[in-house]
Amino acid sequence: MVKREMTRQFLEDAFCGESKAHMKYLIFADDAEEKGLKNLARMWRAIAYAEYVHARNHFKALGHLGSIQDNLQQSIEGENFEVQEMYPVYNNAAKFQNENEAVRTTHFALEAEKIHEEWYKQAKEATKEEKDIEKGKIYICDVCGYTVEGEAPDRCPICGAPKSKFSEF
Amino acid sequence: MVKREMTRQFLEDAFCGESKAHMKYLIFADDAEEKGLKNLARMWRAIAYAEYVHARNHFKALGHLGSIQDNLQQSIEGENFEVQEMYPVYNNAAKFQNENEAVRTTHFALEAEKIHEEWYKQAKEATKEEKDIEKGKIYICDVCGYTVEGEAPDRCPICGAPKSKFSEF
Ligand SMILES: [Fe+2]
Ligand SMILES: [Fe+2]
Ligand SMILES: [Fe+2]
Ligand SMILES: [Fe+2]
Ligand SMILES: [Fe+2]
Ligand SMILES: [Fe+2]
Repeated sequence: MVKREMTRQFLEDAFCGESKAHMKYLIFADDAEEKGLKNLARMWRAIAYAEYVHARNHFKALGHLGSIQDNLQQSIEGENFEVQEMYPVYNNAAKFQNENEAVRTTHFALEAEKIHEEWYKQAKEATKEEKDIEKGKIYICDVCGYTVEGEAPDRCPICGAPKSKFSEF
Repeated sequence: MVKREMTRQFLEDAFCGESKAHMKYLIFADDAEEKGLKNLARMWRAIAYAEYVHARNHFKALGHLGSIQDNLQQSIEGENFEVQEMYPVYNNAAKFQNENEAVRTTHFALEAEKIHEEWYKQAKEATKEEKDIEKGKIYICDVCGYTVEGEAPDRCPICGAPKSKFSEF
């Protein structure tokens, strides 16, 4: 594990850069796929996976990959920050500046993060002895990220998208 | 598209937060999967997908999703920055501070980014009329992110991992 502070800061920054590159390439891949450019989409996805490998290497060198309980705790804290601080403030600022598209994207995210925080808390309770959780099928709204267990709703309660817009996990 | 500067900065920051959350959850999911916790892994992957949806919404609101040519240009510029500036500097700093693990992770990344930059340049040339590229099977080294077309090598030229450690795309 990395010990010196400057190298630690640089690796944190590299983790951020790899995470953003990975994300952009997935977005570009889906866009290329929609336009019928299958090989280009496949290339973007393959390179996104390489960035995942880079990010994971930095993450492990930083000592951030812990036990299952540690990883769930990190997940809870990230979601809690977004629910209690980040998204309410950004949503409020977007309203203040009359930026309707940003009002919408921050509202969509905030609503899903509340569910994520709850699910991670439940999972942390349920995995005290590193055994698996019980979980039915999970559905995610492709439009807003709304997250639900069991069955996809006829209409997304957050954005109104139809059932066909849900992805199953 | 968002116009006001403060809201724009906030959305950029939210894009970064979503990208890092997405990445962490994928890393945690693979770790849970290795430990045989299949439902927990599936939950982390589903929530990672929700973060992808959030990130994509912010990215589009920021006006960053362009034409195929624009998206390839963004990809080239990101890789070029990593190859010419970021990774050489971070790798040099890690050597200076005797942080061997960081020397290794930044070296691994740098070597792959050189290939990525080249591939994106070739793709930009090849897609001038929004038609698809020619591309054989792509293999990514799970250990270092080395990226190669055609066939996986017996040993990774960057990290020495065996052929079995390559993922096919
Ligand atoms: Fe990378
Ligand atoms: Fe979340
Ligand atoms: Fe939705
Ligand atoms: Fe999110
Ligand atoms: Fe890259
Ligand atoms: Fe490798």
